[in-house]
Amino acid sequence: MRQRHKPWADDFLTANSQLVIPEPGKYRGHWQSVFGNENPIHLEIGTGKGQFLAGMAKQYPDVNFIGIEISKSVIVTAAQKVMEVDRDNIVLLNIDANHLRDVFADNEIATVYLNFSDPWPKNRHEKRRLTFQAFLEKYQTILDQAGEVVLKTDNRGLFEYSLVSFSAFGMQLQEVNLDLHKLQDPTNIMTEYEEKFSAKGQVIYRCRARFL
Amino acid sequence: MRQRHKPWADDFLTANSQLVIPEPGKYRGHWQSVFGNENPIHLEIGTGKGQFLAGMAKQYPDVNFIGIEISKSVIVTAAQKVMEVDRDNIVLLNIDANHLRDVFADNEIATVYLNFSDPWPKNRHEKRRLTFQAFLEKYQTILDQAGEVVLKTDNRGLFEYSLVSFSAFGMQLQEVNLDLHKLQDPTNIMTEYEEKFSAKGQVIYRCRARFL
Repeated sequence: MRQRHKPWADDFLTANSQLVIPEPGKYRGHWQSVFGNENPIHLEIGTGKGQFLAGMAKQYPDVNFIGIEISKSVIVTAAQKVMEVDRDNIVLLNIDANHLRDVFADNEIATVYLNFSDPWPKNRHEKRRLTFQAFLEKYQTILDQAGEVVLKTDNRGLFEYSLVSFSAFGMQLQEVNLDLHKLQDPTNIMTEYEEKFSAKGQVIYRCRARFL
Repeated sequence: MRQRHKPWADDFLTANSQLVIPEPGKYRGHWQSVFGNENPIHLEIGTGKGQFLAGMAKQYPDVNFIGIEISKSVIVTAAQKVMEVDRDNIVLLNIDANHLRDVFADNEIATVYLNFSDPWPKNRHEKRRLTFQAFLEKYQTILDQAGEVVLKTDNRGLFEYSLVSFSAFGMQLQEVNLDLHKLQDPTNIMTEYEEKFSAKGQVIYRCRARFL
């Protein structure tokens, strides 16, 4: 995603610390207390401009949503989007997915969403893909027993790689959909990318996988 | 596949019993003796008109190929196709895939090919799909330890179903290709269906999976 320097980002984040939580490691193991309920927590990794998370939070009021996003100038856009829907079941974290285990305790998360993640197509960048084995290990730790990883992408290479990577890790595929938009599913919340690529006639892939 | 009654089929099969083996159960556990060598045996289930098997036998002279086909009027066409390439590393069997274990001993096969199998799209016909659990059990028995199932299809529903079915059975995906013809691979031998559907711009899917 193109990132523009936003000199006002720090002030914005300070003013909105109830939405973009500073020092998230403090809440490790206690995220439900942040939401003030015992609803399951769904985590989007790489939340981008926030459209998916905002739409999901509206659609599923009994789920708590956390979006993490590494880029400060992108997360402020997500925060603005989330503020529009005015829900109290979303928070955002400006952290790197490599640090998930510092922020979430074992079994604390019910679902991990990976939406239109960077495909890192070169072989030498395999380790950066969010479905690389080292990331799957982190998801396995923070997800509860029935926890799922839900992957959505328009990138064929990333999808093919991810199916093989899930399988090699011993995960079980619960669902594979090779043309998500073929049947109009009103429960499918689209990301910004998804709207754009789907409008161009690009196929969207989705799968759900879980650890055994 | 459209089947035409061929009154000459019985005579043809009798005259070509070195190619379309009658009473194949007699060779259970001894298929290499039929070929007179110790090369690995690859099995195509539903060999149709034989173009894939004929092409593979030419391309891989050090592999023995067996094609099974339930329809007598189709297998005679396959036999004619195979005779054109004049190779001694192919035989055909006019049997039902349900009877695989009566014809092959444990670990006797190195690779199972499923090419453009009937998708049986209705849920109530799930048991007829060649990637239904009961068929996977048969493949697991007759395949050797490193044995693979290689599936190729243009049918999205069958491919999605098969990936989930393989996974549920505990098989590991070795490769997933969601657009086989995107890169022209000279080693890919096309079936009749594949040529036809690919020419229409239809995506061809392929995956390889093995039992652990």
